[in-house]
Amino acid sequence: MKKIAVVGASGYSGEELVGLLLSHPEVDLAAITSRQNAGRTLAQVFPKFGHQRKAKNLRFTEPRPEWIAQEAEIVFLALPHGIASEFAVPLLDRGCKIIDLSADFRLRSAAAYLEFYGHEHPAPDLLLKAVYGLPEIYRREIQKASLIASPGCYPTSILLPVIPLLKSLLIKPTGIIADSLSGVSGAGRKAELDYLFVECNESIRPYGIPKHRHLSEIEQELSLAVSAPVTIQFTPHLIPVNRGILTTLYLAPEKHFSDAAMMHELAEQISNCYQAAYGNEPFVRLLDEKSLPDTKNVVGTNMIEIAWRLDPRTGRLVVMSAEDNLLKGASGQAVQSMNILCGYPETAGLQ
Amino acid sequence: MKKIAVVGASGYSGEELVGLLLSHPEVDLAAITSRQNAGRTLAQVFPKFGHQRKAKNLRFTEPRPEWIAQEAEIVFLALPHGIASEFAVPLLDRGCKIIDLSADFRLRSAAAYLEFYGHEHPAPDLLLKAVYGLPEIYRREIQKASLIASPGCYPTSILLPVIPLLKSLLIKPTGIIADSLSGVSGAGRKAELDYLFVECNESIRPYGIPKHRHLSEIEQELSLAVSAPVTIQFTPHLIPVNRGILTTLYLAPEKHFSDAAMMHELAEQISNCYQAAYGNEPFVRLLDEKSLPDTKNVVGTNMIEIAWRLDPRTGRLVVMSAEDNLLKGASGQAVQSMNILCGYPETAGLQ
Amino acid sequence: MKKIAVVGASGYSGEELVGLLLSHPEVDLAAITSRQNAGRTLAQVFPKFGHQRKAKNLRFTEPRPEWIAQEAEIVFLALPHGIASEFAVPLLDRGCKIIDLSADFRLRSAAAYLEFYGHEHPAPDLLLKAVYGLPEIYRREIQKASLIASPGCYPTSILLPVIPLLKSLLIKPTGIIADSLSGVSGAGRKAELDYLFVECNESIRPYGIPKHRHLSEIEQELSLAVSAPVTIQFTPHLIPVNRGILTTLYLAPEKHFSDAAMMHELAEQISNCYQAAYGNEPFVRLLDEKSLPDTKNVVGTNMIEIAWRLDPRTGRLVVMSAEDNLLKGASGQAVQSMNILCGYPETAGLQ
Amino acid sequence: MKKIAVVGASGYSGEELVGLLLSHPEVDLAAITSRQNAGRTLAQVFPKFGHQRKAKNLRFTEPRPEWIAQEAEIVFLALPHGIASEFAVPLLDRGCKIIDLSADFRLRSAAAYLEFYGHEHPAPDLLLKAVYGLPEIYRREIQKASLIASPGCYPTSILLPVIPLLKSLLIKPTGIIADSLSGVSGAGRKAELDYLFVECNESIRPYGIPKHRHLSEIEQELSLAVSAPVTIQFTPHLIPVNRGILTTLYLAPEKHFSDAAMMHELAEQISNCYQAAYGNEPFVRLLDEKSLPDTKNVVGTNMIEIAWRLDPRTGRLVVMSAEDNLLKGASGQAVQSMNILCGYPETAGLQ
Repeated sequence: MKKIAVVGASGYSGEELVGLLLSHPEVDLAAITSRQNAGRTLAQVFPKFGHQRKAKNLRFTEPRPEWIAQEAEIVFLALPHGIASEFAVPLLDRGCKIIDLSADFRLRSAAAYLEFYGHEHPAPDLLLKAVYGLPEIYRREIQKASLIASPGCYPTSILLPVIPLLKSLLIKPTGIIADSLSGVSGAGRKAELDYLFVECNESIRPYGIPKHRHLSEIEQELSLAVSAPVTIQFTPHLIPVNRGILTTLYLAPEKHFSDAAMMHELAEQISNCYQAAYGNEPFVRLLDEKSLPDTKNVVGTNMIEIAWRLDPRTGRLVVMSAEDNLLKGASGQAVQSMNILCGYPETAGLQ
Repeated sequence: MKKIAVVGASGYSGEELVGLLLSHPEVDLAAITSRQNAGRTLAQVFPKFGHQRKAKNLRFTEPRPEWIAQEAEIVFLALPHGIASEFAVPLLDRGCKIIDLSADFRLRSAAAYLEFYGHEHPAPDLLLKAVYGLPEIYRREIQKASLIASPGCYPTSILLPVIPLLKSLLIKPTGIIADSLSGVSGAGRKAELDYLFVECNESIRPYGIPKHRHLSEIEQELSLAVSAPVTIQFTPHLIPVNRGILTTLYLAPEKHFSDAAMMHELAEQISNCYQAAYGNEPFVRLLDEKSLPDTKNVVGTNMIEIAWRLDPRTGRLVVMSAEDNLLKGASGQAVQSMNILCGYPETAGLQ
Repeated sequence: MKKIAVVGASGYSGEELVGLLLSHPEVDLAAITSRQNAGRTLAQVFPKFGHQRKAKNLRFTEPRPEWIAQEAEIVFLALPHGIASEFAVPLLDRGCKIIDLSADFRLRSAAAYLEFYGHEHPAPDLLLKAVYGLPEIYRREIQKASLIASPGCYPTSILLPVIPLLKSLLIKPTGIIADSLSGVSGAGRKAELDYLFVECNESIRPYGIPKHRHLSEIEQELSLAVSAPVTIQFTPHLIPVNRGILTTLYLAPEKHFSDAAMMHELAEQISNCYQAAYGNEPFVRLLDEKSLPDTKNVVGTNMIEIAWRLDPRTGRLVVMSAEDNLLKGASGQAVQSMNILCGYPETAGLQ
Repeated sequence: MKKIAVVGASGYSGEELVGLLLSHPEVDLAAITSRQNAGRTLAQVFPKFGHQRKAKNLRFTEPRPEWIAQEAEIVFLALPHGIASEFAVPLLDRGCKIIDLSADFRLRSAAAYLEFYGHEHPAPDLLLKAVYGLPEIYRREIQKASLIASPGCYPTSILLPVIPLLKSLLIKPTGIIADSLSGVSGAGRKAELDYLFVECNESIRPYGIPKHRHLSEIEQELSLAVSAPVTIQFTPHLIPVNRGILTTLYLAPEKHFSDAAMMHELAEQISNCYQAAYGNEPFVRLLDEKSLPDTKNVVGTNMIEIAWRLDPRTGRLVVMSAEDNLLKGASGQAVQSMNILCGYPETAGLQ
């Protein structure tokens, strides 16, 4: 039983991580930290964990790296952007392995970090050491990583559907549009007027246009897939559901399909491409031609659903994905990476 | 006081029309029909209208054209597609003016109707007689119309933002993408499993991809704006709110804007274009560069909000609109047309 | 046109008041104040008011009594409890009439205020001068008032159904239970974790048990109705809707009704009692024996719906009411009082 | 591995049962039936089960008792009231054990069934054979049962909090009031206008007043607890959440508590009573004096939360409970009964 800590366990991702790790058959959740809840038991802060046997003795502590390193071999950081790196450095020094859910180590380039996050990266040396924790793409690298930068929720919903198509040269790397719809938990557990019930309920709104921070990691990974710079259009919207991201992607096939035969052939290539990429993946559900994604089919699970349609009227390929932003988009994916890192079955604690 | 009838007054658009007409200062709601509610009073079916003085004596009747024509000079048809035309013909013959909220008379071409609706149009002669009831575009034609085909909710949210840009040659007529998010009332008051509370709440899903019926009228009107065939990509999504449509449009400016000066110039042209088109329109709200549309700012009103952003990274223009699908997207717009038709102030009963 | 000010115009009640007063035919909204929004225009803070002609020149100012008194004859205070009285005193001194939406002047007894609000009342002399602004009960007093204490949302939903029954001696003044369900706007526009979308959506929870502050004014008014002290049980619950209160009241009829004839007679007395009290009230809707209240039938209106059932199995009378907590429960009722105070038609601006 | 069938697997309870049984470590879900979905695979009807290994070969069949009895030793009936008994008789004859989620076998008296359900019971002999499947009360009887009548969602939320208090003579058996708030899934997956998203969202409404069918089983079980007839007041309300029931109970303690010492003593007795009854129960969470129930803390689990407050102002005891209506209120509780029946750990498949 590996000993695990969660730093920043009182946000939505942290809470979700705690729930997953408590019921994980192979690990022992040894420490949880939270500045605002230090001293309180897990059950006091989250009554719903009150009855889990393993939760009985868990109490939030102040987040001190030296304590955490004594308690745990693997540390999840579920902290706001910019703060995670303060913990990663001392914890790595003390021999812990780190799975970071923030954006702090997702970019390989300190310059890109500066451009999108507005300040110098505090530990640029670690950027090249970190592995981008998208298991379906970087499984092998994750096995040997000491610092895993777990992807953001929007990036996951975009990268998994797009990367195989790009790598197979089935679509053009230009003109990609990602239109994403996110539940409100994506904004985090923050006491801000914008996220009050009354402000979100019965409201549909775009935000962060046109240059959302997540663009940086999305474009980085798409660029790596084609070994050339890729720039995309990305529009996030806030939707009144607790959880779930639905992304609609507008893509340009490399080939025209001006008649039914060409369309049929292209469809087969796309189908084969996805089948080859994800046919055996435990957490990717490729939908058939009669089904479309629905967040309610993935919420509470670590699955991502992918469906696609060729549109002969416009010559475009429309791809749609659905995931739970807190699971496949955050904590579930982080646990999936932990399973790979530790050599556990990849689905352990995730079904 | 003009006498008015609403045929099909128990659906969501019909209910909304009744509410608007009851409090309209210039008209007298003389007749309401509903097959399923015939014989019941308005207050029995919709308790919320119970206290309006004018509602006291209103009772649903069977929808018989000969009766309706005796009671009313202007008849709103709030009926399912395909059924409206059965009423339009005899009512026009009897001298009534018709404002139809269905799709039956929105297309000028019987061939396009057949392609998108799957059956021959029942009264093709009327297609050329009908005026498309989008007041900001066809105000003059509406004044003299006898048959007004009031636009659909999705088309309104797309046409109003796009047409001025197309007419000013600021954007290309190719490659237009409209990604729309609609509240559930858009599906109508129909007892179907897909629209149950539990199936919609905590769910985000696309549908009707890639060839939704509303495409036909959208493309018709865009084509008329540029006098050339326009084909667009349109993806509707179902969102768990009662009312509201948020549309995000991806458009290609005719001019590149590779430096800040060019971008500034283009921005000014777009701003001027919208200002010229809608600066004096009572129901179009052009947002400034700090604001983005939010359905909660338009729900319950006949307004459409429009905002836009140039994205120098992709060279695209992103335009967003928000409207209430039952008001500016249906019944409010129909009343706006009635006001024009009758020579009332255009905002009468709509503020 | 009377000149009106709203102090604290950026909370939910304040926003609602502004909307009502802008479209009120008899008044001129001359000043709006807000500490946090001082200097901004109304349209900047609330885009939805942007198109109302009267809103064009409105700008939030700092809430200084001397300025307000120069601008307005009637001042609405939509401030947190405890702060309203700081403004009432200087504004009354300067000759303004005050309609206060806070709890500051609802109690006649400074001792009760201390018991329920935990601190001495800052202006106890005014408590006896203030009129409790429940028009259906205190219409005559409101006409001549200079300080109107507009009732809370929960009290309105309880007092209107119960007072006529108590006054007619149809129910016992003991053992009354009020179980209330409120939308989240009742908590105000406050950036607190408890009212975040994710914390409220898909949640049903009681709170403030067993001694909610609103009990004090409810019991005061029930006691006045029977000229004897009345103590009730009151349980508020938070429900994931934006607006609306549904209250279920459990009452003990004075008479037993052990057979059908007695039950029939009692039912007739209750029906007559409500008819006599509210049959001509413009904002009370008495439902028939086939209908039950539903908040969706009153939201957006100043109506309260009341229905009741005798239960022969338990000998109890169950009464249910529904209202919009921001309208009949707050701002609508305050405007109704203003109409009475100024001699306008009572329904002016409220239909 | 016991072989299990679910008859009526496409309603909300049936779907939930399928999910629980698929991931249950001790059983093999061998057959699922559904009239409307016969012939389709489980994954076609419920995409979310598509990736569970055990789900691969499951296909809905017509519900024929002779087939079901060949496939399964234990049969769950998740059918509408009145239909379950048609299956129970032939399945019991063929040696199956039955866990019925409908109301068909919950009453011991055929007369009470007739009174509340409006028609003669089709198999009155079975009524006395059936065991009421409330494990915390009837654990021993469930172990030996062949026909388990699993309780309704409202009854569970009322009986578990009230029975220990009644049995300990701490409260009077008279005057009990249960005010319940239910999510919409409680209405079942039925295509009816009343349960459309738009009709339920932003709506709070009571229904089924004053004589809801569930009263019959509630009063039966309360009467058994005190060996005397108990009549209660019960008011259900429909709340716009998918899942969850929150019940508030108004109870009269046997003892008055007119001073702090008496109140303290009574509080201790209540606390001891609940501790003795449920202190070791795996699915009952007794909240401390600082916490109140919230459906969001139990949704997705088989837990019921219970909290209580003494009100010295009224002399009443207010008890509140929260549960997931589809789990502890239906399918989770049915699986809990199955675990007892089969000698599995009671929490198997429920954590």
